[in-house]
Amino acid sequence: MEINKENISAWLKELQQSICSQLELADGKSKFSNEPWVREEGGGGISKVIKEGAVIEKGGVMYSAVHGDAPDFLFKEDQHSASPNSYLDLHLPKEKELKPQFYATGISIVIHPISPMVPIIHMNIRYFEMPARGGEDNGTKWLGGGIDLTPHYIVEEDAQFFHTQLKTVCDKHHATYYPKFKKWADDYFYIKHRNETRGIGGVFFDRLNSEGDMTFEKNIAFWKGIGQSFAPIYTELIKRNKAKTYSNQQKQWQLLRRGRYVEFNLVYDKGTKFGLETNGRIESILMSLPKFASWEYSFVPEKNSSEEKTLSLLKKEINWVS
Amino acid sequence: MEINKENISAWLKELQQSICSQLELADGKSKFSNEPWVREEGGGGISKVIKEGAVIEKGGVMYSAVHGDAPDFLFKEDQHSASPNSYLDLHLPKEKELKPQFYATGISIVIHPISPMVPIIHMNIRYFEMPARGGEDNGTKWLGGGIDLTPHYIVEEDAQFFHTQLKTVCDKHHATYYPKFKKWADDYFYIKHRNETRGIGGVFFDRLNSEGDMTFEKNIAFWKGIGQSFAPIYTELIKRNKAKTYSNQQKQWQLLRRGRYVEFNLVYDKGTKFGLETNGRIESILMSLPKFASWEYSFVPEKNSSEEKTLSLLKKEINWVS
Repeated sequence: MEINKENISAWLKELQQSICSQLELADGKSKFSNEPWVREEGGGGISKVIKEGAVIEKGGVMYSAVHGDAPDFLFKEDQHSASPNSYLDLHLPKEKELKPQFYATGISIVIHPISPMVPIIHMNIRYFEMPARGGEDNGTKWLGGGIDLTPHYIVEEDAQFFHTQLKTVCDKHHATYYPKFKKWADDYFYIKHRNETRGIGGVFFDRLNSEGDMTFEKNIAFWKGIGQSFAPIYTELIKRNKAKTYSNQQKQWQLLRRGRYVEFNLVYDKGTKFGLETNGRIESILMSLPKFASWEYSFVPEKNSSEEKTLSLLKKEINWVS
Repeated sequence: MEINKENISAWLKELQQSICSQLELADGKSKFSNEPWVREEGGGGISKVIKEGAVIEKGGVMYSAVHGDAPDFLFKEDQHSASPNSYLDLHLPKEKELKPQFYATGISIVIHPISPMVPIIHMNIRYFEMPARGGEDNGTKWLGGGIDLTPHYIVEEDAQFFHTQLKTVCDKHHATYYPKFKKWADDYFYIKHRNETRGIGGVFFDRLNSEGDMTFEKNIAFWKGIGQSFAPIYTELIKRNKAKTYSNQQKQWQLLRRGRYVEFNLVYDKGTKFGLETNGRIESILMSLPKFASWEYSFVPEKNSSEEKTLSLLKKEINWVS
């Protein structure tokens, strides 16, 4: 079957449904809402949100498929500027009647559990295309995605499990993918002003089309594999950790770590920036923010505590699969 | 007496001390810490932080005076780009040996009270100079500042009091200042992605040097007036509201409003961006974030509630002095 935006979107919508069902089973109490929405300029989405569960405090599995005139800020202003706002390696066409049309579809997930012993997880897979406008322009399309884990307390066995699962998915498709995309995640999920990573990373990739022996079709299979790995990985991590007891002090540490998560999402996350700049659906974009977060001035964890150990592991280039 | 960076800094340091004393009196329980710090590249500051008071949950009165090589990103890259990162209307000199030296000093205050009935307040006054490098360059210096109020519940009498006090300070110096700087605050303290103002605004100004009949010396007097107005205004607002009772539901609304405050500071606030980009002292920069904040998906206040009324007043161009 030919791969096109219609069947990519349809597959994503099915995946959204399947992930929600598996998360509801793992939570055992709450159900996801189902909120279709329409984008004025073209397209829309389905937001599925869960709250006050037995395991999940706040979470969203958001599907969207939007299209229309590609916003000007996506393009480079001129040859010399490298504006942080230019997402595309393209110049705005001079002929206004040739205003390019874009199509973007994807799923975004963030789950904030109640217990500080259960990690926060994030997954996003996205497809973007902008068809040819004639002339020398052949159009463009690509795949992007990422999955990363943010434990409030890093459990080394869980971190190894998480990365090994991702490596298995990657290795099935290309031997270079895990090391390449693991490094990309280390660099992407990084809170520069804190000099710490958001969590233990995972994989991140963007603008995947075809390269060498990897055709676009083969990359689609890899990309789907990442999407399908989410639910089994996270439900296993829930199962391992949900029954652990915790103290008020550990709950407060969780709120501080969530504060860092807010910092990353509002200061660095490209998806959030893109959403805010394109006048996206604000509640869907900021669904990633936790129910509660905290900031303490100059907080320093106790010497030799598990909080200090976690902090010491929030850095790049840790090899979790050995 | 000649006005120079030394006596401006000295005056700011005294103001910091005086404001802290008045806030301690108003709080009645907690005292400010006193934390001098040194900036590797030149200068430093004194952070004064208060927490777990009778009125104030978390607050900071931060003084700094930093200097050194002006960072490249302050300058425009070229004539055509208007990068959001270029803070100065100047081009980077071609002669590397003429690397410009900057000096920036100021006070920044954010106070988060415990009670949702007491408003959040922010004040900042700053002085910036970059001396001449010879040739046609005459150097530059300016004053900036702002004070704005973020009530969790807008009390109209308090809003009128706040704006009338600021108008009185402005009117003493120039008849155009209040309307001009009130509008500037409306535009600056604005959460674009929410289409709501952060609070009820106040005044905001930047790059004030000399213009018309307002010499630099006269503008210094105005600027000092703004700085000195902070403590009497806020201690009055504390006195008016601190004894009011509140419910858990009102406390939860406060946390949601604080979430908006976090969004503004991390997404839009220029001082925060400047600090994060210049590798500033992170704990001082993010002192503005509250101890606790909250985000709820698609929260809508009850019809005809005081929360709904507050939301309806979070917009630009409300005239609070009549």
